[in-house]
Amino acid sequence: MTIKELGGEFALIRRMMKHPASDPAVVKGIGDDCAAIRQADGTLLLVTTDMMVENDHFNTAWSTPARIGRKLVESNVSDIVAMGGVPKYAFLSMSITRETTVEFMDGFYAGLFAAAVRHGIFLLGGDTTHGTEYIFNLTLTGTVDEGGACFRSGARQGDLVCVTGTLGGSTAGLKLFLRGIKESGTDPSIRQCFLDHLEPWSRTVGEGRTIARFAHAMIDVSDGLAPEVTHICEESGTGALIELPSVPLSDATRAAGVILGLDPYDFALYGGEDFELVFTIDPLSLDALRAEFTDFTVVGEILHDREGIQVVKDGIRQPFARGYDHFA
Amino acid sequence: MTIKELGGEFALIRRMMKHPASDPAVVKGIGDDCAAIRQADGTLLLVTTDMMVENDHFNTAWSTPARIGRKLVESNVSDIVAMGGVPKYAFLSMSITRETTVEFMDGFYAGLFAAAVRHGIFLLGGDTTHGTEYIFNLTLTGTVDEGGACFRSGARQGDLVCVTGTLGGSTAGLKLFLRGIKESGTDPSIRQCFLDHLEPWSRTVGEGRTIARFAHAMIDVSDGLAPEVTHICEESGTGALIELPSVPLSDATRAAGVILGLDPYDFALYGGEDFELVFTIDPLSLDALRAEFTDFTVVGEILHDREGIQVVKDGIRQPFARGYDHFA
Repeated sequence: MTIKELGGEFALIRRMMKHPASDPAVVKGIGDDCAAIRQADGTLLLVTTDMMVENDHFNTAWSTPARIGRKLVESNVSDIVAMGGVPKYAFLSMSITRETTVEFMDGFYAGLFAAAVRHGIFLLGGDTTHGTEYIFNLTLTGTVDEGGACFRSGARQGDLVCVTGTLGGSTAGLKLFLRGIKESGTDPSIRQCFLDHLEPWSRTVGEGRTIARFAHAMIDVSDGLAPEVTHICEESGTGALIELPSVPLSDATRAAGVILGLDPYDFALYGGEDFELVFTIDPLSLDALRAEFTDFTVVGEILHDREGIQVVKDGIRQPFARGYDHFA
Repeated sequence: MTIKELGGEFALIRRMMKHPASDPAVVKGIGDDCAAIRQADGTLLLVTTDMMVENDHFNTAWSTPARIGRKLVESNVSDIVAMGGVPKYAFLSMSITRETTVEFMDGFYAGLFAAAVRHGIFLLGGDTTHGTEYIFNLTLTGTVDEGGACFRSGARQGDLVCVTGTLGGSTAGLKLFLRGIKESGTDPSIRQCFLDHLEPWSRTVGEGRTIARFAHAMIDVSDGLAPEVTHICEESGTGALIELPSVPLSDATRAAGVILGLDPYDFALYGGEDFELVFTIDPLSLDALRAEFTDFTVVGEILHDREGIQVVKDGIRQPFARGYDHFA
């Protein structure tokens, strides 16, 4: 049976979850942005890991070594930030080729360490091996006070669903590249999409911690708004309704949609790698959050489980389509 | 410049070490089997990560999915055991192909979880992606009391150099496979070499902790005795002398050497993946260790730094050749 026939990437992960960790220190195992383990001082140790594969997550023709190194760090930091945590220590495994140059690696490290410094992270170890393509894996630890941690599982009926920044830019950039449109000398109106794809920023640690003080549930946008909201609903036992016209898109993403002849809202719903934050919050807490952080948009509401997960598109409620799946 | 021209894998790692972690909690960063971080309760958090690449670390024609999953766990556990630590939590990243079957993954998980149960490890998370070849990366955490930790850097002049079990079997098995000799129906005298390659066992947590109580320095054999002794000497600021005839080889490894027409001591010195332990110990502590653990052999002595690192072969002292290097 292929993994596609099984139901794809998440079906495979669920299969692995048949072996739950029966350890009382484990607060979250498989199934959140990070694992969370209770430590002796009452804080939680957070651990996340992300693998980037050449020609899937990055492409050496479009990107630069420094951008690849930086994206590896930012994508992992985003998982820690989405728990309300503070990143600490990183471990890099990589498979590079026998033709890889020292100049490539110096560029890669420069990007990686620049992002690490930005977030206060130290690289403490790793493994270097070789293969036929570039593979970079980063494992990142972090900490969070147990009371300050924000999981996927805390959404409550009546919560508002919010997203930070704008969505879909990274996917728009990828689709422009795939269409053969180059970053250099391009139409300035779509330029930001290339940057969103090649140089995504995680939300800062401070932003994540601020939101975590008010939010009931949080997740970062790795795979698109639709699968992320689905994860929150599945873990929280709720439904949700997303108002598509409320989903924030940048002008560049809209312009890219016109050039590509594609609906830019699909980039936001089913694309990914935006590394923005999706969170749910009691409507009564909204003003208090807004007093400290304003770069977010209300895009929907948490419903009862029986209502399912729906999106209002062209005035009609419809279920989400599937998000990106590595094996679909 | 190629990485080979730079000086290979370890030259690349030294280049990365130009960015040391200036964090007071970090007891060991890059440059030991695991990173070691001081925790609030006075214990050390250990973290190691190992990447296995298809056709380099394993081959689906020779091995089975279960054996691949198991080897991934055992190779990481060995790093924790070599610090005198107790493994705890694992995080699996993998790149598999669109053609990967559910049956393959079920076999892989079966081997992985069997090894995890053996060592008391819980799998708490990971990342699943796809590429053109199989890549498996495991990050493993563990703990050790600060006083009970054994690093590479503790060797002292006059210490004896010891190794557990026998060395070279894994490399003998690999070379038999590469020569086209099959595991099934093979000469029973060399059968163990195939098992050493496909199903290596880490030393147990209890064995590692026992040795760590007496040893000054310890490392596991990932890359061969010669590079491991070199790591100990470099980190400890010492030299060493290894008596080649004392290096323990199994009968199967000797038999494989005859069949292959190769010197089996080279498998032990420059092969790798034996996952045995190399440690240095004060001669006065030897009997005390022997009262609790006996499966080890004295193979040499720690010398003053100016004596260099040498091996006595055919009655002549000579410097080590280089060990395995991914970029040599």
